[in-house]
Amino acid sequence: MNWPSHGSNPKYLFEALDLPIPKRLIDFSANINPLGPPPELEARWMDIFNRITDYPDPDASELKKYISEIEQVDPQTILIGNGGADLISLVSRMLSGKNVLIIHPTFSEYEKNCSINECKIHYHQLDAPGWELDVKALRNKLDGIDALFLCNPNNPTGVQYQSEAIMELLKASKEAECLFILDEAFYDMLSNYQPIIPFVEEFRNLIIIRSMTKMFAIPGLRLGYMIAHPEVIRRIGGYQTHWSVNVPALAAGEICLQNRSFMVETRNYIIEERHKLFTFFSNERYVHSPSEVNFYLLKDTDTEDQLSLLRYLLTHGIVPRHTFNFPGLDGRWLRFGIKQSSENDRLIEVLKQWRKHHL
Amino acid sequence: MNWPSHGSNPKYLFEALDLPIPKRLIDFSANINPLGPPPELEARWMDIFNRITDYPDPDASELKKYISEIEQVDPQTILIGNGGADLISLVSRMLSGKNVLIIHPTFSEYEKNCSINECKIHYHQLDAPGWELDVKALRNKLDGIDALFLCNPNNPTGVQYQSEAIMELLKASKEAECLFILDEAFYDMLSNYQPIIPFVEEFRNLIIIRSMTKMFAIPGLRLGYMIAHPEVIRRIGGYQTHWSVNVPALAAGEICLQNRSFMVETRNYIIEERHKLFTFFSNERYVHSPSEVNFYLLKDTDTEDQLSLLRYLLTHGIVPRHTFNFPGLDGRWLRFGIKQSSENDRLIEVLKQWRKHHL
Repeated sequence: MNWPSHGSNPKYLFEALDLPIPKRLIDFSANINPLGPPPELEARWMDIFNRITDYPDPDASELKKYISEIEQVDPQTILIGNGGADLISLVSRMLSGKNVLIIHPTFSEYEKNCSINECKIHYHQLDAPGWELDVKALRNKLDGIDALFLCNPNNPTGVQYQSEAIMELLKASKEAECLFILDEAFYDMLSNYQPIIPFVEEFRNLIIIRSMTKMFAIPGLRLGYMIAHPEVIRRIGGYQTHWSVNVPALAAGEICLQNRSFMVETRNYIIEERHKLFTFFSNERYVHSPSEVNFYLLKDTDTEDQLSLLRYLLTHGIVPRHTFNFPGLDGRWLRFGIKQSSENDRLIEVLKQWRKHHL
Repeated sequence: MNWPSHGSNPKYLFEALDLPIPKRLIDFSANINPLGPPPELEARWMDIFNRITDYPDPDASELKKYISEIEQVDPQTILIGNGGADLISLVSRMLSGKNVLIIHPTFSEYEKNCSINECKIHYHQLDAPGWELDVKALRNKLDGIDALFLCNPNNPTGVQYQSEAIMELLKASKEAECLFILDEAFYDMLSNYQPIIPFVEEFRNLIIIRSMTKMFAIPGLRLGYMIAHPEVIRRIGGYQTHWSVNVPALAAGEICLQNRSFMVETRNYIIEERHKLFTFFSNERYVHSPSEVNFYLLKDTDTEDQLSLLRYLLTHGIVPRHTFNFPGLDGRWLRFGIKQSSENDRLIEVLKQWRKHHL
């Protein structure tokens, strides 16, 4: 079976399963803010049109200024990228041929990009149902490793690792002369996030990658940033294509970052919807990952094969993200984004029907 | 002197020369359509906003369909890139460590990207005032060369090479097992363009790169495409970051390509303005390159140092492109884009003043 490798663009999933596409579709496969982009972005979208006749600023000075003020870091520690995937691709080029540790289950782009760069890839598997970070076991695997990737909060589980565990692993990595690449693509969805950025100065082995497209619901624009020591930024920036982040992406970033209240509103919305969903799951014998963000893993323990549930959902217009290409999950779970309240209600309704028909 | 390496973003040029920025600036440094983007793009810009909440189609199927219809090629021979610079960066990765021939003066991104990929770079210099392609001399340099870059029509001279010369060099390259990378970023500005794309099937060593941002005046969006044998496309596409071309760029490409009459209108406008400018230059002892497109090289033969002319123009609000980082030009020429009629008139006026004060 040739599974499409990413979320969004559901047509590829229907094609792969040879299913007709229903008229009404709700796409739960993408992990973006259910509230959509900040209203200010729509209000200023025509202004952005007037800027597309100029080349983008290759240094992204304006956007860096905003980020440096918010995060209290020097602009020289910031690299703006054409989405998180671009930054992962750039950092992987620096790792060409090296030994890399990937902590599964996690975002597939790390392994994909490391393979392209002929890295020797080592694995560490975290286990259901908690998928917690077992630092003791991980420490023992650092010998000879040049870089490790950690995603926090983790995609696809939605689990936030304890900051003590992250710090312990960061210190162990420094001792082992191992780069610590921390993907914080979803940090802004957490209500109790413990910032790691302040440690960039002390830990030259620390590279933080963030996406700006999840919180602001602009995955179509591609925008993210990296924070690391200026020497690391210069080196990785050297691989970057000139003008790789375009004007709408840069402009949207500038507008969105001025919208702090939008972020708080989003987090409160997600907490409420997650509570509603998780309560239903527990009552109906569905198992979910202990997510603290805007997506979660789900499985029906009454059914051996989640593929039949996947097909049922798709034919009822519900598009989850399959997990066949997440090593350690291998299709045994389905991932769902938290959507708008009525859409989450529709999911609950369809899962109730499934339960009724498959008791 | 630390010359800013690219056109557009004039502030970096004023900073480098320690000049105050005048209130009214006309930027002649970028080579884009003086008529601006097609009106249809502005009319549909808000529709594009509604698509930015979805990920871009990583395969860019829609845009490929349009290109394949227009160019009469199989979609599998097409790769969509995040601007021409992105495609140059991708093809250069395939050339890592190889022997590459660059034909100067030309666009600086070829050499920059080949250096990043540790290519051994060889040079061939074309000479003023015609900068013609001397195929005989070039043939003799192909021995041991793995790839050559040719820009046609050439940036920064605006010279279109004879198609017989291009075909002869293409054949010689095939015999020498040398990749022939043809950058056609400005092909659509030519009124008498001879298409090379039909030869992609016969010549597996042929890789054509095109920009879509010059004709449609959308350099802020970043969009281009590559046409080559499907095997080459698959290999180069493997280096590409996932979702590297964002939704506004893809959508704009789809809209612009449906606007064939806009392209004809543009070419006619440029012919007229170029004629006006070149007539003035000849009458006033300014020398220009024999450009057939929307930009040209200029020098004042009465002045040894074009730097003083550059400073004069800048203080009068005229921003040309310096040529200090074009090997073989080394600042002895200035490059100008053809702008709107009144702007070109302003350039003529300032050059008249300069002539009056520097007789």
